[in-house]
Amino acid sequence: MVSVAGYYTTQFGELWEKSFSDLVKEALFGLLKSVQKIDKNEIDAIFFSNMLGGVLENNLHTPSKISELLGVNIPIFRIEAACASGGAAFHLAKKYIESGSAKTVIVLGAEKMTDYSPEETTSALISAASGEEQEAGLTFPGLYAMLANFYLQKYHYKEENLAYIAVKNHFHGSLNKKAHFRKRITVKNVLESPYIAFPLKVLDSSPISDGAAAVLLTSDNNILKKLTNKIEILASEVATDSISLARRKDLDSILATKIAAEKAFKTAALAPKEINVAELHDCFSIAEILAMEDLGFWEKGTGGKNILELPTMLGNSGDLVVNTSGGLKASGHPVGATGVKQIGEIYLQLTNQAEERQVKKAHYGLAHNVGGSGGTAVVTILGI
Amino acid sequence: MVSVAGYYTTQFGELWEKSFSDLVKEALFGLLKSVQKIDKNEIDAIFFSNMLGGVLENNLHTPSKISELLGVNIPIFRIEAACASGGAAFHLAKKYIESGSAKTVIVLGAEKMTDYSPEETTSALISAASGEEQEAGLTFPGLYAMLANFYLQKYHYKEENLAYIAVKNHFHGSLNKKAHFRKRITVKNVLESPYIAFPLKVLDSSPISDGAAAVLLTSDNNILKKLTNKIEILASEVATDSISLARRKDLDSILATKIAAEKAFKTAALAPKEINVAELHDCFSIAEILAMEDLGFWEKGTGGKNILELPTMLGNSGDLVVNTSGGLKASGHPVGATGVKQIGEIYLQLTNQAEERQVKKAHYGLAHNVGGSGGTAVVTILGI
Repeated sequence: MVSVAGYYTTQFGELWEKSFSDLVKEALFGLLKSVQKIDKNEIDAIFFSNMLGGVLENNLHTPSKISELLGVNIPIFRIEAACASGGAAFHLAKKYIESGSAKTVIVLGAEKMTDYSPEETTSALISAASGEEQEAGLTFPGLYAMLANFYLQKYHYKEENLAYIAVKNHFHGSLNKKAHFRKRITVKNVLESPYIAFPLKVLDSSPISDGAAAVLLTSDNNILKKLTNKIEILASEVATDSISLARRKDLDSILATKIAAEKAFKTAALAPKEINVAELHDCFSIAEILAMEDLGFWEKGTGGKNILELPTMLGNSGDLVVNTSGGLKASGHPVGATGVKQIGEIYLQLTNQAEERQVKKAHYGLAHNVGGSGGTAVVTILGI
Repeated sequence: MVSVAGYYTTQFGELWEKSFSDLVKEALFGLLKSVQKIDKNEIDAIFFSNMLGGVLENNLHTPSKISELLGVNIPIFRIEAACASGGAAFHLAKKYIESGSAKTVIVLGAEKMTDYSPEETTSALISAASGEEQEAGLTFPGLYAMLANFYLQKYHYKEENLAYIAVKNHFHGSLNKKAHFRKRITVKNVLESPYIAFPLKVLDSSPISDGAAAVLLTSDNNILKKLTNKIEILASEVATDSISLARRKDLDSILATKIAAEKAFKTAALAPKEINVAELHDCFSIAEILAMEDLGFWEKGTGGKNILELPTMLGNSGDLVVNTSGGLKASGHPVGATGVKQIGEIYLQLTNQAEERQVKKAHYGLAHNVGGSGGTAVVTILGI
C-alpha cells in the first residue's frame, strides 16, 4: 500500500514577484521542511507535472533543473497531460513505487501563467485541443460553452443553475488562505458578470494562476512510523478519450471520467455515497455538474436541479462536500499544479488539517482531474 | 520479466510531406501491423515520448489525440526529458508493467522538426539547457563544443580524433534504409566541413530530423508464445545531474551516464565487455567518445586514441559494434523518437533482423540516451 504522507502548496494567484523556478523551489523545499523527519537523501524519485513551461517559458527538461536545485542524481520525470498533468504524474508515481523501484517519491506540479498576455495564455492552452478545433478558432471557454449549451438545452435548465457552483466554490475559497480568490459571490454576481462564451460568464470560469504544489508518497514503513499525518491511496485510475468534441458519442458526459471512476470505485471497493469529501475539476461551472454525474454522485441530468440547494457546500446538510479548496474556480488553476493540489487538499481534510474549511468525519476522499475538454481523466480515491 | 516484442520506425529525415500526426499514426499502426498477432484491444497503455510538440507545433495533450487515432480509452502518458524522452518513456513503461497495472504497452516517440527555421529549432532545443546558459546565448553545439575543447586539451587530442566517430556512423547509416543520411564520408570530409562551434564542425553534429518510432513491451505469456522475435529487458536505469555545465564537478565525463550505467550493469549482472552491440547518444562526435568511457567500454581519456582504429565499426575486429543504425549522426535525431529507435535497433540486432548491418552473434545490447548536455541519462540493457 502506498501512502500520502506530506503536502505543501504555495499561494495560488497572480504572483508577479515569483518566477517559475521560485515556485518549483518553494514547493520542493516547503514539502521537505513540512515533513521534518524526511531527509532529501530518502527521496528515491520525483515526478514533475507541468503543461506550459515549454510553450510560455521555453523551459523544458525540467527534471535536470530539479536535480540541480535539490543536489541529487535520482530519476526525475516530467509528465504532461494538459490540465490533468498533476493527476497523471501522481498515478505514475504510485505505480513506480508499486513496481518496486522506489519507496519514497515526490510529486511536484508547477505552472507560471500570469507573466503573459491573455492572448498568449489562451493560445498556449488551446494546444490541448484537437488541431481541427484550434483551426476553427475555438478556445477552452468556447469548448466548455458548447458542453454547457448542450446540457442546459437537453435537461431544460437555465444559466442560473450553473451559477450555484461558482457561489459554493467562492465560499470555500474564502476559507482557504492559499486560494487565488477569497471573495464570496452571489448568484446575482455570477449572472451579471460578462459573457466569455455563451452561456459561460467570467464568474463561471476558473482563472489563469501561478502556483506550485507537492505531495510526498511513500511505502517505507520506517518513514511511515515516524509520521502522524498519512492517508492511503485506495485507487488511482486514468482513462483517455477522443479529444475532439465532434468525435464523441455523448456531449452530456465525459466518458474518460466515467471509465476512470468505475475502475477506481471497483479497485477501492467503495461506492460513491461513501465519499465524504471530493475535489472535482471545475475549470468551468458546467464541468463540476458533469463530474458530479459522471462520478456517480448524482443521476445524469439531475445536477442542474440538485445544486440549487447547495448540498455539497460546507456546513450544509449533504454527506459529501465538494471543492473545499475553492476548486479551480476560486482556489485558482495553475494547470500543472492543480491535480497535485487536489490530492493535497484531500490529504489535509482526511488528516484533520484543513482548518476553517475542515469537513467533519471525513474518512474517504476523491480527486478528479481532467485534461482539455475531457481527453484525459484521472480519478484518485484516498482513505484513512 | 518484460520483453520487447516488436518495433517499427518511419523513415528519418526531412519529411516535408508528413505532418507530426502523420508520423505518430504511421509508427503506431506500423507497429501494430508488423506484430500481426496483436490486436489493438490487447494494448493496456501507451507511453508517448516527445520534446517539442508544444513549443514548435502548439500541440500538447497528445495522449488524448492518440486515444482518438487508435479508438481506445486506455491510459496514455506523455513523457518529456528533452532528447532523453524516449529512454525515459521506455523506462516508465517497463515499470508500469512491473507494477502489475499493464501487461502489454506501446512506447511511441515522435518529433517533427524540419518545418521550422534553424533559428526556431535551435531556440526551441536550448529550452533543455539552464536559464543561465540560455541567457548567455549558448546553443547545444556551443555546450558540446565546451565539453569537446576540455577533453581535447586535457588528453592532448586533435579535432581529427573526433572525426572518426562521424566516419564510422555515416558508414553504418549507409547500410540503414531508414537513416536520414546514407552517404559515406571520410576524415578529410569532416575536417573540411564548416565549423558550427569550435572544435565541432557540421560533420561532427547530428542533424535536425523528422521521424517516429515505436516498440512493443509485454510480459503476457499468451502474446509472447505467439511471437518469434522477442528479447528481454535486463535493466533500465535513469539518472539526473545538474543541467548547468558550470555546476558540474567534471567536464570530461557525464556523471548521469556513469550512475545509470553502474546501476544497469549491476541489475543485469553483466560487465561492459559482455555487450556486443550498443546504440550511444552521439548528438555530437565528442558525446560518443565520452559515452564509451563513461559506460566502461574504454578507460577514461583513451577514447580519442582508441577510435583511430575504428574498432567499433561493423566488420572490424572489435567485440562491440556501436551505432549500427548510424547513430544520431547519420540515422538522424528527431529528438522524441531517438531513444525509442535506439532500443528498436538493438531489438533488430538481437533478433537477427538488421539486414546489411547485422552484427554476428549479438547476445547482449545496450542503449544510451541523453537529455541536454547530460542532465538526464537512461541506460537500457537488453538480451536474448
